Amino acid sequence: MLEGLGLPASPPAAASTSVAGSSGPAACSPPSPSAPRSPESPVPRRGGVRASVPQKLAETLSSQYGLIVFVAGLLLLLAWAVHAAGVGKSDLLCFLTALMLLQLLWMLWYVGRSSAHRRLFRLKDTHAGAGWLRGSITLFAVITIVLGCLKIGYFIGFSECLSATEGVFPVMHAVHTLLQVYFLWGHAKDIIQSFKTLERFGVIHSVFTNLLLWANGVLNESKHQLNEHKERLITLGFGNITTVLDDHTPQCNCTPPTLCTAISHGIYYLYPFNIEYQILASTMLYVLWKNIGRKVDSHQHQKMQFKSDGVMVGTVLGLTALAATIAVVVVYLIHIGRSKTKSESALIMFYLYAITLLMLMGAAGLAGIRIYRIEEKSLDESKNPARKLDSDLLVGTASGSWLISWGSILAILCAEDHPRYTWYNLPYSILVMVEKYIQNLFIIESIHREPEKLSEDIRTLRVVTVCNGKPVASSCLKSGGVAGDVAPRGRDMPPAAEGNVCMREGCGKEEEKQEESSWGGSPSPVRLPRFLQGNAKRKVLRNIAAFLFLCNISLWIPPAFGCRPEYDNGLEEIVFGFEPWIIVVNLAMPFSIFYRMHAAASLFEVYCNI
Amino acid sequence: MLEGLGLPASPPAAASTSVAGSSGPAACSPPSPSAPRSPESPVPRRGGVRASVPQKLAETLSSQYGLIVFVAGLLLLLAWAVHAAGVGKSDLLCFLTALMLLQLLWMLWYVGRSSAHRRLFRLKDTHAGAGWLRGSITLFAVITIVLGCLKIGYFIGFSECLSATEGVFPVMHAVHTLLQVYFLWGHAKDIIQSFKTLERFGVIHSVFTNLLLWANGVLNESKHQLNEHKERLITLGFGNITTVLDDHTPQCNCTPPTLCTAISHGIYYLYPFNIEYQILASTMLYVLWKNIGRKVDSHQHQKMQFKSDGVMVGTVLGLTALAATIAVVVVYLIHIGRSKTKSESALIMFYLYAITLLMLMGAAGLAGIRIYRIEEKSLDESKNPARKLDSDLLVGTASGSWLISWGSILAILCAEDHPRYTWYNLPYSILVMVEKYIQNLFIIESIHREPEKLSEDIRTLRVVTVCNGKPVASSCLKSGGVAGDVAPRGRDMPPAAEGNVCMREGCGKEEEKQEESSWGGSPSPVRLPRFLQGNAKRKVLRNIAAFLFLCNISLWIPPAFGCRPEYDNGLEEIVFGFEPWIIVVNLAMPFSIFYRMHAAASLFEVYCNI
Repeated sequence: MLEGLGLPASPPAAASTSVAGSSGPAACSPPSPSAPRSPESPVPRRGGVRASVPQKLAETLSSQYGLIVFVAGLLLLLAWAVHAAGVGKSDLLCFLTALMLLQLLWMLWYVGRSSAHRRLFRLKDTHAGAGWLRGSITLFAVITIVLGCLKIGYFIGFSECLSATEGVFPVMHAVHTLLQVYFLWGHAKDIIQSFKTLERFGVIHSVFTNLLLWANGVLNESKHQLNEHKERLITLGFGNITTVLDDHTPQCNCTPPTLCTAISHGIYYLYPFNIEYQILASTMLYVLWKNIGRKVDSHQHQKMQFKSDGVMVGTVLGLTALAATIAVVVVYLIHIGRSKTKSESALIMFYLYAITLLMLMGAAGLAGIRIYRIEEKSLDESKNPARKLDSDLLVGTASGSWLISWGSILAILCAEDHPRYTWYNLPYSILVMVEKYIQNLFIIESIHREPEKLSEDIRTLRVVTVCNGKPVASSCLKSGGVAGDVAPRGRDMPPAAEGNVCMREGCGKEEEKQEESSWGGSPSPVRLPRFLQGNAKRKVLRNIAAFLFLCNISLWIPPAFGCRPEYDNGLEEIVFGFEPWIIVVNLAMPFSIFYRMHAAASLFEVYCNI
Repeated sequence: MLEGLGLPASPPAAASTSVAGSSGPAACSPPSPSAPRSPESPVPRRGGVRASVPQKLAETLSSQYGLIVFVAGLLLLLAWAVHAAGVGKSDLLCFLTALMLLQLLWMLWYVGRSSAHRRLFRLKDTHAGAGWLRGSITLFAVITIVLGCLKIGYFIGFSECLSATEGVFPVMHAVHTLLQVYFLWGHAKDIIQSFKTLERFGVIHSVFTNLLLWANGVLNESKHQLNEHKERLITLGFGNITTVLDDHTPQCNCTPPTLCTAISHGIYYLYPFNIEYQILASTMLYVLWKNIGRKVDSHQHQKMQFKSDGVMVGTVLGLTALAATIAVVVVYLIHIGRSKTKSESALIMFYLYAITLLMLMGAAGLAGIRIYRIEEKSLDESKNPARKLDSDLLVGTASGSWLISWGSILAILCAEDHPRYTWYNLPYSILVMVEKYIQNLFIIESIHREPEKLSEDIRTLRVVTVCNGKPVASSCLKSGGVAGDVAPRGRDMPPAAEGNVCMREGCGKEEEKQEESSWGGSPSPVRLPRFLQGNAKRKVLRNIAAFLFLCNISLWIPPAFGCRPEYDNGLEEIVFGFEPWIIVVNLAMPFSIFYRMHAAASLFEVYCNI
């Protein structure tokens, strides 16, 4: 089919791209490698445009293929979840194994190809696949492989009554994880220019394979949580709810019974990490997909530095929150479901803890935004798939928990009788919404700001690169540059006035425009209170980021490891009915959990860039 | 809160924008108003960049606000759908009425403001709010208002036992519809530059209000379809399925009973149009939202022309399909649910009809893509929110029907016994997937192509505008322009060679870049077979577009008016269980229906542009 559509192979395009990028005429000074990207990087276009017909088509071809595969997988998952007649777990596992195998073959082909063509100049997106991202994915991958080993052990124990697929799947999954981490370490930053169609298909296949593995993990985890919840529920006095356990324990005995119980318990403690691994891998692969055929200049991304000085307050507060969380979770899990009183006290404790933490986080976020507002500064709005995905994911996945929160609020407002502990649910639910709203604003503004230290260098470089090295431009450089740098520009001074200095000097329209885009947003004279200037301001922001980072890790733990007051308080289930509410929570919770981990990751990046 | 975040009001920015656009120095020739946009329009940046801090923030602020409102509405809808304790229809209608009132006030404010400032130069996005879009929205709006009148009649008839909200809602909805259509006629193309924050909030509020009204319409329609389906189901012999009717008929008698029955029947025939109206309105408003604060040049969009000559074959075939569809739908609705044999024959008839139609459509789409492939031509990849939304919606909403199709395929493969008619379901489901895959490729490629007639003018204009009117540039214009226009450029000639002509003439780097982006993609010499050249090719493509347009209208009718073989064949319900399958169909079907109408709209645009 692809040949039928006449998609031309495009290595020549890649070659001409690098040629165009390096062989500018002597008269035109080539853009400095570390020049800031203008919103639309105007570098090698020629090769790109030439290849654009197959590229747009390949994009649609592959995204549709990916969606069709994904939808098929979702249906198999649904079929398994609802015990559809004739569709079992082994069908699902077969399908997933086949997808992984296909991805494995593609990755081998890709890795082989690129090591064979190592001498070719390869473009990289310096924003994609950051070091900390690869680090955390490796950590999660290790735990995923441990999980795989446990599953293999489980299969061996129950081998009499389990189908072979349940043994093949974890083996394949472990191999897949290993190779994928290797692949992401080596190629997450690639900007693929050659063989775009086959590579697009491979990458999108990988994205959706990982998403399906994520959905599979989520479903397993949800089933487990639901069973635990049903067991607990009766003790809280809500007896009129269906409590049929949806258990998939095999029908035969395991040889060393204690070991088998330990393994099946261990598996559920490791699932949250596996879930994070899959979603992280799919986001990294998605960025790789978005980068295929992209045109970037070779702008050198500033290496992120992790500095730990001067963030004592934020770190200590954050670590305290983390310690408190662990204590709360342990107490919660011990108390919940033992008796009605114990459950209620556990719920009240959890709500009080969460309300305190969320208020602190909201205040910290507001303080951060306030600092940004005082010091007005333009944002970097250049094209950057990794960053756009980050922002979209933050807002999109927050919606999951907004759904649950609205459900709780509605339930509290409409319920007929209110046990005391349910009232704590109201401020908690409201704060969950408000805190995410504020935090998203803070993170999105932070990741769109250019790193502080760069700005000076950037302005100098801009002056040099903007004027194209023409003789007439040097006067423009002096007057425009000096006007902007030395004389403090009033904030209310109409920006047109600055440009005119340059325009009167006879610079071409093009240069003027470039200047507007790069200088119009240069930091206006900082009007921060003295204690918030320069290094001190940076320290405050870094403390906020560190605190929020640790708090988000803290808030990831309770839902990931089974503290789910949305289940346990029972109020929503009475108002909405058991089944509908369970469906809502099971659909929204994975996004809510992912939100915390993703926010933590983004805050780590923010911290390093401040 | 907005003030707290220090968002500055931005009229000065807007003013400076227009100043910058018009008062360039004499030395620099201002960009021609009809110059084609380069991928990154380099026009008024100053105002834009200065306002970018609040803009990025306002974007996040408003999108999060919109999502929170939307999620709250969804939960109220869910609560009503599952008969949550304490949440009734009147709560939902109150909420929707309040949202509409708020939007009404905002629209009045906006319309008042813009007529007061009419003399200000206002930017327009010529791609947004096309004429045919406004035409069709008016048509649907008229039907929506008729629906409102019927609802008011229904309320008067049952006024004894209905709450006042059920009377207020349709009145408010009619007023809202009227004003909104007026608003969209006048302002759909606006590119809002001033008061961005308040306007962002207003527009996003409108988007999500319309989406909630859409969801409300869909839910009403689904409930109705589900009830009809349950009544029919027993006749097909699937008796073991729960058949509790979810009816919301009021508990009192209507004064003229025959009139009341007629009204409540009429209401359900008008719902599909209301649903289309709401979703169309929300897409137009979304484009308006995406356009806020955008920087565009005043590129004059070519006026679309509707020409009907030479599309006899496509039109006749399409109209035949339309007539056949209406006949099939009528027969289907009469036969289905009467007896088991009649139901089966109706299903077989429907499948045979749909298989034939889908095969023809797939073939037509493939032919169209093939023609595009033969004549290689670059695509217009400039920024265009309206077009991007179109593409995303096509692929996204197609996923809805892919989900249903996979469900059918899985059910056929896994079911234990297969009545004869179920086998027709297999090719039908596969063809639904394949046809949408092909059609999306065809439409997306079509809407990314520049209109045929323009290309010559565009190239001339580009030559004129690109070189900035400098003396040195005139030689560049001659050499570069002539090289490109007169001498036929070989397809395999490295594109760098052309650029060098200009570069050697001493043009600045900027101009060279501009040229690359605009000329690199100029049509290479056409290599079509003789019968597919020029006008003949255009005719073939136009026939294809006309045929596909009418076929999509045809395929919109059956699901919108109650032909739902996914319900009626009963096989999927046996495999997945009644409840899960009903949930899947009810979630996916609205997107599937919307897909057809949206594809028809896109194909109409394609037709006019060929």
